[in-house]
Amino acid sequence: MTYPFLNRLRVVESSAFIAAPLAGLTLAQFGADVIRVDIPGGGIDYARLPRMPHPEGRGRSIYWAGLNKGKRSVAIDIRKPEGRELVQALATAPGPDAGVLLTNIGTPWLAHEVLAQRRADVISCTIQGNADGSTAVDYTVNCATGYPYATGGGSRERPVNHVMPAWDVACAYQAAFAIVAAVNRRQREGVGAELKMALSDVAFTTLSNLGVLAEAELLHEERPSIGNHIYGAFGRDFATADGERIMVAAISAGQWRSLVKACGIGEAVAATEQRLGLDFDDEAQRYEGRDAIAELVEPWFAARGTLDAERELQANKVCWGRYKTVGELLASDKRVSTENPVFERTTTPGMGEHLVAGSAVRAPAMERAPTRPAPTIGSNTDEVLAEVLGLDAGAIGRLHDAAVIAGPSD
Amino acid sequence: MTYPFLNRLRVVESSAFIAAPLAGLTLAQFGADVIRVDIPGGGIDYARLPRMPHPEGRGRSIYWAGLNKGKRSVAIDIRKPEGRELVQALATAPGPDAGVLLTNIGTPWLAHEVLAQRRADVISCTIQGNADGSTAVDYTVNCATGYPYATGGGSRERPVNHVMPAWDVACAYQAAFAIVAAVNRRQREGVGAELKMALSDVAFTTLSNLGVLAEAELLHEERPSIGNHIYGAFGRDFATADGERIMVAAISAGQWRSLVKACGIGEAVAATEQRLGLDFDDEAQRYEGRDAIAELVEPWFAARGTLDAERELQANKVCWGRYKTVGELLASDKRVSTENPVFERTTTPGMGEHLVAGSAVRAPAMERAPTRPAPTIGSNTDEVLAEVLGLDAGAIGRLHDAAVIAGPSD
Repeated sequence: MTYPFLNRLRVVESSAFIAAPLAGLTLAQFGADVIRVDIPGGGIDYARLPRMPHPEGRGRSIYWAGLNKGKRSVAIDIRKPEGRELVQALATAPGPDAGVLLTNIGTPWLAHEVLAQRRADVISCTIQGNADGSTAVDYTVNCATGYPYATGGGSRERPVNHVMPAWDVACAYQAAFAIVAAVNRRQREGVGAELKMALSDVAFTTLSNLGVLAEAELLHEERPSIGNHIYGAFGRDFATADGERIMVAAISAGQWRSLVKACGIGEAVAATEQRLGLDFDDEAQRYEGRDAIAELVEPWFAARGTLDAERELQANKVCWGRYKTVGELLASDKRVSTENPVFERTTTPGMGEHLVAGSAVRAPAMERAPTRPAPTIGSNTDEVLAEVLGLDAGAIGRLHDAAVIAGPSD
Repeated sequence: MTYPFLNRLRVVESSAFIAAPLAGLTLAQFGADVIRVDIPGGGIDYARLPRMPHPEGRGRSIYWAGLNKGKRSVAIDIRKPEGRELVQALATAPGPDAGVLLTNIGTPWLAHEVLAQRRADVISCTIQGNADGSTAVDYTVNCATGYPYATGGGSRERPVNHVMPAWDVACAYQAAFAIVAAVNRRQREGVGAELKMALSDVAFTTLSNLGVLAEAELLHEERPSIGNHIYGAFGRDFATADGERIMVAAISAGQWRSLVKACGIGEAVAATEQRLGLDFDDEAQRYEGRDAIAELVEPWFAARGTLDAERELQANKVCWGRYKTVGELLASDKRVSTENPVFERTTTPGMGEHLVAGSAVRAPAMERAPTRPAPTIGSNTDEVLAEVLGLDAGAIGRLHDAAVIAGPSD
């Protein structure tokens, strides 16, 4: 679903991969008119896996379609000077709801000072790998965060990469935030803004925000590699009698009491506390005694089928979750279905009908509109150039003839 | 560093743990006056590990200090009706820059409709575990995303949890975005907004945005568990002669050419392409041939010390990163030092001097202010009640006497 928070704010997006497109998607889900500009035929992310089946292997990218829902697509050949001029004009078109550029393409002709010559109050947000302009992607940043050494029993000899591109995702949502904050200020003060975000800064500032940097500096300690245990309290995964796995978390005192009650291990816990000289009502001491606690919880899960275990956990308000494949999630979890208003079904050209998410934000009292599927490249070229730049049919035809722009079938 | 984008927008935060506090921090870094309300002595996250050393084990939480930089702290006993009334009054105080509540505490007396009776255009953002109000934390949501089965060679028998709470972080930045978008709309249209975000929705909508849900639904495929390989292109970690590990990414065609050139494997690559009938210029075919490619790259790293390898990778503009512990990152990486303007040194009460991050967003042309360290609980109680609610010294004294509020030393 899309909410009309941003009053058709127009954002021109010249982007690829995840961080910038996901920022654009986030803005589109709040009602922005996001115009994604690509070269005819699509940019370097347009064929990224996974793709739909196709006899010649050129099926539509499901990845691209996910990240570009609800946007309009304009195909412009930015290798031609006239094409670059068109993108600059789109990004700096007049009007209080226009004049915003979102990009991860660090090219001189889209530099803030160039755009500001055309529109003084332009807002540009440029996402980079590193702040010095050198290349970096989620995976080459993540390796320096320390997390791969601490994940899944990882070690110096066998670091474990994350699979979900967490820094790209964090960067995207923060970029959307920064853009709207700058729009907010422009509404008040009439000034534009040059915003720059480096993916490596997003990762390393998050380490500071989570206390990880100060821990290493002040305590001279590295976070240990503790497998699936939750650091600092108690939580771990357990196997049920039928071989499924369930994650439980006992971070708060209430969650801990619920777990002890559900598993009926009150007496055993008390005996273990006495034996170890620990007070498990204190989260730090729960963490210290995590292996002993896990030994008490393991037999309870091992003695039960998954459904029985889930029923008893639920009845006792334990904080728990079941491990699932994505297929199982889709097949069995109401939270990922049209029973959840955050999801709906849509039909994406070249893909067919499928479940699709709108904004994760719910605004119960607000009107909302269905999520539009991702466009195909150039679907909106003519319409956007007419509407935003006021080009007439003759001018647009000439740009087609000169192969500066392209429609969906060119 | 803090930037004055939000013009002292006042946000009252009643929160705990990561998602809501990190959203508040993000707003504070853009110039919002974020007033965190806690019970005297601190809430359930105030003692979370890691903590500073202390003879009785009650050293300051480094975790809490990281997430609450730049905020003001008011200590109010919300177990007392008069305390709840004070929090409601703070959240709905008059003025165009006030009237915003950020919380993850789903309590009836902070419900949107209750606040809206006091201020019709209030904006509230409530972060939940699940949208039905049931409890969930990052780790009990993540287990259902499919990622633990695909991480680090994870399997159904041995899922691998992430360590960085990625969904909390994504939720935080998206909440900050939603709040600023709602403020933007209130500036324009004069209306408030009820915003709700469930952590599980943040995770599952991200699966849709990244194409993971549609892949499972339309292709009936589960993402395979491929260790440290990057899905859909080429990228993996390699060991150098001195036992360090380096991650390389060859997602774009340019990155691939750089890697081939740096490693001097052009002929071997061509021979391998011919043998396998694959064209590695195509990212999907690079992915298909990833093991064969890795075999060609491995000897190059194994034959070099880390510094030599890094120099050659750099010279050839390969996209690469070195695995580091947090200690190594702090000791050796200029990106995490005061050479990077995103970082500065600060002194946090109870912790001492340490490196600290400001916003990951850079706004080169804008004035910026130093990051203030996290407060201690109740540091700003009297000042905030006087300034925001206009209470005089007598009224504040009476609230202290009745133990409704507390200062830092109470």
